[in-house]
Amino acid sequence: AMDGAPPPTSPAGLSAYVAVSQLLGLTLLAITGAWLGRYRGGVAWHSPLQFNAHPLCMVLGMVFLQGDALLVYRVFRHEAKRSTKALHALLHGLALLVALVGIIAVFESHRAKGIPDMYSLHSWCGMATFVLYLLQWFLGCGFFLFPGASFSLRGWYKPQHIFFGITLFILSITSCLLGITEMLLFKISDSYSHFVPEGILANTLGVLLVAFGLVVGYVLTREEWKRPPLAEELALSMDFKTLTEGESPGGSQ
Amino acid sequence: AMDGAPPPTSPAGLSAYVAVSQLLGLTLLAITGAWLGRYRGGVAWHSPLQFNAHPLCMVLGMVFLQGDALLVYRVFRHEAKRSTKALHALLHGLALLVALVGIIAVFESHRAKGIPDMYSLHSWCGMATFVLYLLQWFLGCGFFLFPGASFSLRGWYKPQHIFFGITLFILSITSCLLGITEMLLFKISDSYSHFVPEGILANTLGVLLVAFGLVVGYVLTREEWKRPPLAEELALSMDFKTLTEGESPGGSQ
Repeated sequence: AMDGAPPPTSPAGLSAYVAVSQLLGLTLLAITGAWLGRYRGGVAWHSPLQFNAHPLCMVLGMVFLQGDALLVYRVFRHEAKRSTKALHALLHGLALLVALVGIIAVFESHRAKGIPDMYSLHSWCGMATFVLYLLQWFLGCGFFLFPGASFSLRGWYKPQHIFFGITLFILSITSCLLGITEMLLFKISDSYSHFVPEGILANTLGVLLVAFGLVVGYVLTREEWKRPPLAEELALSMDFKTLTEGESPGGSQ
Repeated sequence: AMDGAPPPTSPAGLSAYVAVSQLLGLTLLAITGAWLGRYRGGVAWHSPLQFNAHPLCMVLGMVFLQGDALLVYRVFRHEAKRSTKALHALLHGLALLVALVGIIAVFESHRAKGIPDMYSLHSWCGMATFVLYLLQWFLGCGFFLFPGASFSLRGWYKPQHIFFGITLFILSITSCLLGITEMLLFKISDSYSHFVPEGILANTLGVLLVAFGLVVGYVLTREEWKRPPLAEELALSMDFKTLTEGESPGGSQ
């Protein structure tokens, strides 16, 4: 941009899809807040309302922030890779922190009310997702952020990181839908089948969670929207290839 | 193979993953059967047990058969495209039929017991998935099986078909997990939190449904396991390209 060249533009359509994803994400937070505020007495820490911090934190951390962390390489496609990578790690770290608060909320609320932990399919899926998400974050930092890992090791791990990253995002949304179903059957089991407003609102939240996952997943998997390597990254990778091919002729895979 | 050349082999690892997926798929059916048989009185049509046909048909149709239909292009990677395509459409058609029986089971059982339909998040997600799956099947037949669609139209639709196909498979598994959670909270809400065997068994079914989706998803998305075009398909596509480029110089995308 300093040499007077026109600034690089994003592919047509990408910006629109990203805008829709952000509108959906904010709507998710608004509907979760409306559900908890209007029908569940609101959110408060160290009170009978502590449980309500759980759904709010999980939708914010495991869905909205995690989804935005995945979109970083598409949105900042012309920034330096190093800073985009740092933002990716930072947003996932923030998502993990918010989710941790949400998990503490449900365990403390269970203890206060004498409810057993970890018996439901929601808790199994949710906890597995959180633990594997934390593991994926550490692995991602170890392979890509710290300078130790070799170029070829990074190349081997990258497709795994992407596959499990998208998988964990899908599992996070699935765990939210299971949580919504559980909460409705605990709280309004008698009136749920009469199409009461709370049931419709919470079902709508579930459908919009799926829609958010769909839009983010579509943006991530479209071949022509993938981040193009910058000129200097290509040059570096070429240099490296020449170097390693010189080192070990007829090398592995 | 007629000319004495060695038969083409599958890439290392692919066969193992496909074998694991089939073992998982059969285990899903066995656990669903065990759950319904041992704890829910078994399965029968036009009886108070009619509801139980619903989970069995949905796991068989929307998960096992749908998953196997997706794997067809990886498993039969050296067969002619036309026959692989026909098998793909046939398995999806079978999955739709089995699922339809499962849907009739729940509606008839609801009517017999006076339970309202379509109020829960499970029913919203499940029905949306089934209707979109049926639509995707018709679109797939229209674009790829019948001779009407042009080469370029097929090329445009193919990535959409793949994206929405995988999405519908994920949504099918998600709907199953929601159904398991609903059924447990309807049937054993009092004992579920005491880690009773039925709850553990049904939770395990949920975890194995996720595992099946993971293995199938991994096989489908691994770049080096994608079906290579046969020599004659490449030649045909080349001929076509030359033809169309000759027809409309500087043509569209």
